[in-house]
Amino acid sequence: MTTTASAMPADSTTPREPITIALLGSGVVGTSVARELTQNAADFEARIGAPLQIVGVAVRDTSKDRSETGLPADVFTTDAQALVDGADIVVELMGGDEPAKSLITRALSNGSSVVTANKALLGSDGPELYQLAMDHGVDLSYEAAVAGAIPLIRPLRESLAGDEVTKVLGIVNGTTNFILDKMHRTGAGLRDVLAEAQELGYAEADPTADVEGYDAQAKAAILASLAFHTRVRTSDVHVEGIMNITAEDITAARRAGFVIKLLAIAEKVERGEADGGAGVNVRVHPVLLSRSHPLASVHEAFNAVFVETKLAGELMFYGRGAGGDPTASAVLGDIVQAAHHRVTGGRGSGESADADLPILPIGESLTRYVVRVEVADEPGVLGRVTSAFGEHGVSIESMRQGVRRSEDGLASLTFMTHQAPEAALAATVDSIKKLADVDCVSSVLRAEGN
Amino acid sequence: MTTTASAMPADSTTPREPITIALLGSGVVGTSVARELTQNAADFEARIGAPLQIVGVAVRDTSKDRSETGLPADVFTTDAQALVDGADIVVELMGGDEPAKSLITRALSNGSSVVTANKALLGSDGPELYQLAMDHGVDLSYEAAVAGAIPLIRPLRESLAGDEVTKVLGIVNGTTNFILDKMHRTGAGLRDVLAEAQELGYAEADPTADVEGYDAQAKAAILASLAFHTRVRTSDVHVEGIMNITAEDITAARRAGFVIKLLAIAEKVERGEADGGAGVNVRVHPVLLSRSHPLASVHEAFNAVFVETKLAGELMFYGRGAGGDPTASAVLGDIVQAAHHRVTGGRGSGESADADLPILPIGESLTRYVVRVEVADEPGVLGRVTSAFGEHGVSIESMRQGVRRSEDGLASLTFMTHQAPEAALAATVDSIKKLADVDCVSSVLRAEGN
Repeated sequence: MTTTASAMPADSTTPREPITIALLGSGVVGTSVARELTQNAADFEARIGAPLQIVGVAVRDTSKDRSETGLPADVFTTDAQALVDGADIVVELMGGDEPAKSLITRALSNGSSVVTANKALLGSDGPELYQLAMDHGVDLSYEAAVAGAIPLIRPLRESLAGDEVTKVLGIVNGTTNFILDKMHRTGAGLRDVLAEAQELGYAEADPTADVEGYDAQAKAAILASLAFHTRVRTSDVHVEGIMNITAEDITAARRAGFVIKLLAIAEKVERGEADGGAGVNVRVHPVLLSRSHPLASVHEAFNAVFVETKLAGELMFYGRGAGGDPTASAVLGDIVQAAHHRVTGGRGSGESADADLPILPIGESLTRYVVRVEVADEPGVLGRVTSAFGEHGVSIESMRQGVRRSEDGLASLTFMTHQAPEAALAATVDSIKKLADVDCVSSVLRAEGN
Repeated sequence: MTTTASAMPADSTTPREPITIALLGSGVVGTSVARELTQNAADFEARIGAPLQIVGVAVRDTSKDRSETGLPADVFTTDAQALVDGADIVVELMGGDEPAKSLITRALSNGSSVVTANKALLGSDGPELYQLAMDHGVDLSYEAAVAGAIPLIRPLRESLAGDEVTKVLGIVNGTTNFILDKMHRTGAGLRDVLAEAQELGYAEADPTADVEGYDAQAKAAILASLAFHTRVRTSDVHVEGIMNITAEDITAARRAGFVIKLLAIAEKVERGEADGGAGVNVRVHPVLLSRSHPLASVHEAFNAVFVETKLAGELMFYGRGAGGDPTASAVLGDIVQAAHHRVTGGRGSGESADADLPILPIGESLTRYVVRVEVADEPGVLGRVTSAFGEHGVSIESMRQGVRRSEDGLASLTFMTHQAPEAALAATVDSIKKLADVDCVSSVLRAEGN
């Protein structure tokens, strides 16, 4: 082996024209991206076969100090549109709907490649943007939009292109994983832990998007689209957040060998031709997960996505889901790829929607449930509750009866069901609530994993 | 959403010429690959935009029943070379050195794309083959060569192309992970567990390649080449197998909060310019791994690769490392990718060797060690052993003294060191062995993770 490093492209001796990059947005991720491109310019050039050049950075306020990026002050501009028009690659890190959507649309229509981390936009308008990129023969890459630094989009889109994904289970929101993990470790209630997460910077001042599951909802749509070659939008995804999870739920889960996680779930449901054939079910909600499941040991604000396929079997991808540098890692990988295509021709595999499966309503989703009912400790009540399950065709796998509590004279009955349709379970819960000697249904949680 | 599936390419209305595939080898992986391509021809065509056609399968014996592949008997041939010459994509699943090497060389020189799972060949001749593929502007893909079904090559080569990998720790051999995991769970000795693994089909009749670490060695070379943009060959990789791991080692590890795993390790070592600058250290050996490390909970024959990078931080990829269907999943992903490039033009990112870092000798590798010494329980012996560490500049982090055993009158001293160079540790062990009242050094293991 020789010991000298070379910064020249391996397969070319004449210098190439630079590939121009327009950076839209200069927050924490944009700053990391700019810094890396500036500091390691020679490495990027060697890897790509042409230099990369940031021709401008669109910001709201050009007067702010941005020396951290390593870029001269005159590349910062408020005129994003003019910037887009001149660039080979447009890197959109503004987030949100507009002007991001118009700028990306314009860039793709111009024949520029686009790299974005905008999960909200892809969740709502992904299908049109994917099509636009395909029509113009350019790359639209978004590795950073789901699970931050974890290489996930490319594996799903490319590595598994010859396999058949049957199910995706993802911890794709670090804030809620941090909160639930902390509740498990300390026994504290959700509101206390949320306050602590806000102090530590793991949760926003307004935590709605995270704790209500909306952030995970958009990511679920993106993952489901890729996994099932079907157009899935955020609005197709059933969502329930974690705000109703109590310290008692966590304790009960732990005692039964489970952990509670907020999961993005996308699964292919095989139905007979008479029932409409295969469909896709996409949802975000808290689940009870067996402690032996690989996702159960994903702690703190880490993300992980568990994929089941016909041929590969079980796969898991684990890493950091957020943060400036981790997200920049994903964005830079996409930039190198897009630049590589500019040099060698061709483009990456686009999104395919060739399977085009129907999205099934949440009522048709089949899961196992754990239902906790508070009852007066009177003869006959167990029989009546059990019958309510039977009447709606929900089969009980196991039951556990708690001791009568002195403070309220009630006892808990905890039922684990076999797989049942959401609609049948909902009807069962309604019936149970109306029974004599039933105080309340204190918890209904879905279970995943064996 | 519409509910009908379409098998037509999304971006074309006129049928395209088929992309021709030559399959070299029809063992368990080849059979899975052929079966999937045959059964799901319409899906592959829709995804690629052109049909795939297996024009021939090279086998040693054409008389064998191969109906499982779904292919007509007349596609099987013993003339691999003629087959190679007519194909757009050559899929090499024969394994071993020759004729695989000549056939791949011929295919790349012809301008065909090559997909291979041949880790041995890539470990020894990868650099020349990568260069040949680049010279001819074609794809050489090998997702299946390391960690079977786990998408790993593409993430390392593409997703992390804008990041800087600092360390790779991989469980890349399922047989040895099965054996060590079983030893941990049952307390049984290595030879008993190996015999059981052979019965269950997890180990070969001749287990040398697995238990001596040779299989992992080739994979370590492939991973290191990709991770560090440097040409690393199997012969550059220091290797130690698991045959010396005893039930006592496992018990001692468990008591101290560790598990023992056979890891492929590749790390970038930063040295001052005066010392030659950054280098790469690649090795395969058993390590003590903290039970809290994500790799510690990889059980049975599963594989997982843990990657540390400058920006992304910690990533882990987990899944099945072997088997017909899992390996076929990876091969098929590569086939789709190569076919996609045939349709749209361009090629995948090739291997870059632009960093071209020196491979450091194992003596320069820095690790923490756990050293177990059996000593006569006499005054002064602890002081003499401790001094031996000090004389060679190896700093002790902690020490634990076992009780004097009645059967041999000896006691165990277990030392955990701070990071020390391999060479200094080896000299320490030599010195200790020569000390009065030292019976033997019963175990020397490296530790990874915090």
